[in-house]
Amino acid sequence: MKNAKNIKACITAIGGYVPEDILTNEMLEKMVDTNDEWIVSRTGIKERRILKDPKKPTSYMGIKASNKVIEERNIDPMSIDLVITATVTPDLPVASTAAYIATEIGAKNAFSFDIQAACSGFLYGMSVAKSFIESGRYQRVLLVGADKMSSIVDYTDRATCILFGDGAGAALFEASENEFGYEDEFLQTDGNGRNYLKIDAGGSLFPPSHETLDKKMHNLYQEGQVVFKYAVSNMLEATQKIMERNNLKGNDINYLVPHQANKRIIDSIASKTDIDSDKILMNIERYGNTTAATIPLLLNDNKASFKKGEKFIFIAFGGGFSWGASYLTWSI
Amino acid sequence: MKNAKNIKACITAIGGYVPEDILTNEMLEKMVDTNDEWIVSRTGIKERRILKDPKKPTSYMGIKASNKVIEERNIDPMSIDLVITATVTPDLPVASTAAYIATEIGAKNAFSFDIQAACSGFLYGMSVAKSFIESGRYQRVLLVGADKMSSIVDYTDRATCILFGDGAGAALFEASENEFGYEDEFLQTDGNGRNYLKIDAGGSLFPPSHETLDKKMHNLYQEGQVVFKYAVSNMLEATQKIMERNNLKGNDINYLVPHQANKRIIDSIASKTDIDSDKILMNIERYGNTTAATIPLLLNDNKASFKKGEKFIFIAFGGGFSWGASYLTWSI
Repeated sequence: MKNAKNIKACITAIGGYVPEDILTNEMLEKMVDTNDEWIVSRTGIKERRILKDPKKPTSYMGIKASNKVIEERNIDPMSIDLVITATVTPDLPVASTAAYIATEIGAKNAFSFDIQAACSGFLYGMSVAKSFIESGRYQRVLLVGADKMSSIVDYTDRATCILFGDGAGAALFEASENEFGYEDEFLQTDGNGRNYLKIDAGGSLFPPSHETLDKKMHNLYQEGQVVFKYAVSNMLEATQKIMERNNLKGNDINYLVPHQANKRIIDSIASKTDIDSDKILMNIERYGNTTAATIPLLLNDNKASFKKGEKFIFIAFGGGFSWGASYLTWSI
Repeated sequence: MKNAKNIKACITAIGGYVPEDILTNEMLEKMVDTNDEWIVSRTGIKERRILKDPKKPTSYMGIKASNKVIEERNIDPMSIDLVITATVTPDLPVASTAAYIATEIGAKNAFSFDIQAACSGFLYGMSVAKSFIESGRYQRVLLVGADKMSSIVDYTDRATCILFGDGAGAALFEASENEFGYEDEFLQTDGNGRNYLKIDAGGSLFPPSHETLDKKMHNLYQEGQVVFKYAVSNMLEATQKIMERNNLKGNDINYLVPHQANKRIIDSIASKTDIDSDKILMNIERYGNTTAATIPLLLNDNKASFKKGEKFIFIAFGGGFSWGASYLTWSI
């Protein structure tokens, strides 16, 4: 859908944070029955960062990433109107992680809430942030994508423990001062997907109990092949829809910014949309799947290269199922 | 903040659902050391609804409420663009409850996500829904507030088990066809509040373990007096701010729609803002605190009386802390 109004939202600053501790494929070989060659060929992942200190929850990383945004943009945190955190690993179940991050970074005039759209969390959060800017009511919206995946991964399950890492990224959304900014989006969900990618217990369907713990129902479960199939076909459809209705060919796109779940998924989509591999931002090799943090970490690692007017396609797929694509022209 | 643009968002249909099973104060007297007179005088609550079937999670109620919205507005669910669910008791931790609700009600063109702002969830969700409408990109946004509080309440803790009930409500947001609709809002959070109103375990700070279960860290905890004090002073400030900047006196307001946590909190705010008690919508007596469902259930129970142009003030306070007030003129 095109925005019918004349205010455009843009990203004016980006920050990122990953923990220092590295979990390599070689280290995983000693923990479960797996090996480096298998992991790299199937997923593209060589290592991930892990926030080892059990006293440090997701907000610890979100605060670090957010403070870098404030520093980069050189703004008073009191000027931030809204803090949104996309996460599947909130610090606590009832108080939002965003509220804690907002207070800790000094954004005391902001209101804040968490959104939950799994691996599409940051992509969806961009849509929420830009809507607040486009409404004209707010000037500065901080979007944080942060996940401590190590808090929900079962490190005895070789199918999932190789995939995930911890990290956080943040982006500041403001009204664009030129013709560039958030252009278009195509976002979709399918609730049947929750049979294939989920954590069974911890919600109202299976509240936590000794039985749910003994049955390992609090850890991430996915049917890898089903998820792979849906991820490729749905992200491809979303990408093609966005490219078609904005008259974009593969050559027109400067950066494809894909959620980092699996290198083979991303390569498959890129090849079918004629987007050259050198235009695809990737960090899965170093970080694994950091869920809501993959996209802002990609932006943070590459921001020095971005130029005004360059065209970005963002894509994601994840739990729900939730997926989509969005189109942004760089504004600063 | 005023909307700088010319599209106004309004509510065009409302639905609600509460389970059939009733938990009365008399029944609670047999479960914990409490009594009807004490509960009524301190909270205003006489009974609550409980979704007893353990196989029925929060979405069960959200789907019922959403289907009533679709029926009332007589629309094709395929015309809904976005489904947002505000909840602290999602069905599952990773797949959003909104995605499941959207699919089950046939809103297959919609994207969807959950938001988490505790007892302010619906108030904040209204702000999100109206931003999507005001952006001009989307025409129909369904906001669902649903919580199965019985899935997180400890029914041996007399301080909290008397307070909460289960329920769901939903409202459809569309662009207003006249001068009325969502007018203004003042929303705030304070992350220090999570020390006083929280569930300790189940997030990344205390992942579920046999120890967290044995220590009852998965149940709702609040320091009642601290929460009471902050709730009154912060909601009062937000209400006064909204009334002042929209030139509203107590007499001008047709309906005060307060989150239902405690009748004494609500009475205190009403008396300090000169809003007559007959203008205050209440359902706490029958439902207790249904968290994200209190406000849409109030609207649903009273919608037959609402007239075009009538002035509504919505207020809420809850976990985070999160709180605020919003102002809406009825548009249909």
